[in-house]
Amino acid sequence: MEFEKTERNKVKRVPSRGHYDKQSVYEILDAGFVCHLGFEVDGQPYVIPTSYGRDGDIIYVHGATKSRLMLNMKKGIPVCLTVTHIDGIVLARSAFHHSMNYRSAIVFGTAREMSEEEKEHGLFMISENILQDRWEESRKPTPNELKATTVLRLEIEQASAKIRTGGPVDEPVDYELPIWAGVVPFETKILSPKPDDRLHEQATMAESVRKLMSNGV
Amino acid sequence: MEFEKTERNKVKRVPSRGHYDKQSVYEILDAGFVCHLGFEVDGQPYVIPTSYGRDGDIIYVHGATKSRLMLNMKKGIPVCLTVTHIDGIVLARSAFHHSMNYRSAIVFGTAREMSEEEKEHGLFMISENILQDRWEESRKPTPNELKATTVLRLEIEQASAKIRTGGPVDEPVDYELPIWAGVVPFETKILSPKPDDRLHEQATMAESVRKLMSNGV
Repeated sequence: MEFEKTERNKVKRVPSRGHYDKQSVYEILDAGFVCHLGFEVDGQPYVIPTSYGRDGDIIYVHGATKSRLMLNMKKGIPVCLTVTHIDGIVLARSAFHHSMNYRSAIVFGTAREMSEEEKEHGLFMISENILQDRWEESRKPTPNELKATTVLRLEIEQASAKIRTGGPVDEPVDYELPIWAGVVPFETKILSPKPDDRLHEQATMAESVRKLMSNGV
Repeated sequence: MEFEKTERNKVKRVPSRGHYDKQSVYEILDAGFVCHLGFEVDGQPYVIPTSYGRDGDIIYVHGATKSRLMLNMKKGIPVCLTVTHIDGIVLARSAFHHSMNYRSAIVFGTAREMSEEEKEHGLFMISENILQDRWEESRKPTPNELKATTVLRLEIEQASAKIRTGGPVDEPVDYELPIWAGVVPFETKILSPKPDDRLHEQATMAESVRKLMSNGV
């Protein structure tokens, strides 16, 4: 299954790195939990980091009912949601051919506010994307807490993924230069969980955290 | 020194997490090398990940002369540049009070294209921000390579930082619940550098990489 390819989501620069199949886009979205959400108010663009969840072609984001993001987004304005993973720095012999290994997904859509009845599903999906099973372990939201939270539902209208992997690609003559070249890979490491100072004496390590520690992010 | 506080850069949600002093903003910018750059074309926002460098209140970004980002940005349109570091997941007893520890900087400005003469300084600053001293080790750009690259100079007009640290904050009654709560910290780990397959036999490990490995990102 592919996303429609239009002027808006077409990868123009190095088109060979562009992917439009849903699987590639989903994998990049599902490998992260913080996106950068772009929207415009009175000609001024804003880019806000926020958490998200995905359910098929629907992405959920949430925020305080009174935040700028929510007050503007719920009007049904066009948004761009981007998720990026940096996998390494690519060192070429020439300054010009330096690059990065990365996976990024760019999603275009229109945000719609969810009703009081639907909200909890959106929050559940966001929570599951951040830390699977944590929702079930937690004290669930009260009606007042739900009221203080706006949840938006963004149907993916178009999307594309851009992926770079592998080593540097230099100009043919530059391979004669005795300059070190290669890739410095990065990864996100999870450190030891730090229990809250006021932990209840009967609170044992959460299963969700235990699972995260053994599976990685 | 503080950035001017206006409607545009004021932190509205949890204002206690907002910082406007230049030092806080600079530290967050300098701790990263990939930003999310937001701009608008014909009412459609775009959010593009890209590398950057900083020199005082000037931020440099670059791209292929023919890329959408560059073709639009060099017209002198308003942009929003955001850098985010995720430091951990904050697990509260209640679903509602889950959070993240993060440091984010949001910068507002207008991009201007750099002249052929100025360009190289911008590229040098971007290169230094990604990997210090690498520029000096590399084969420098040719006039044609410089021509194929657009470099933009973005003077910070306004900026703000938003920082969350520490453990969860739950509702008073929820501390009685035997639910594990705390922080799961993250960090970016640099893995062993992978030399290019076609490395010159006299190429020894780059000093820039050696320094990165011992100092961290």
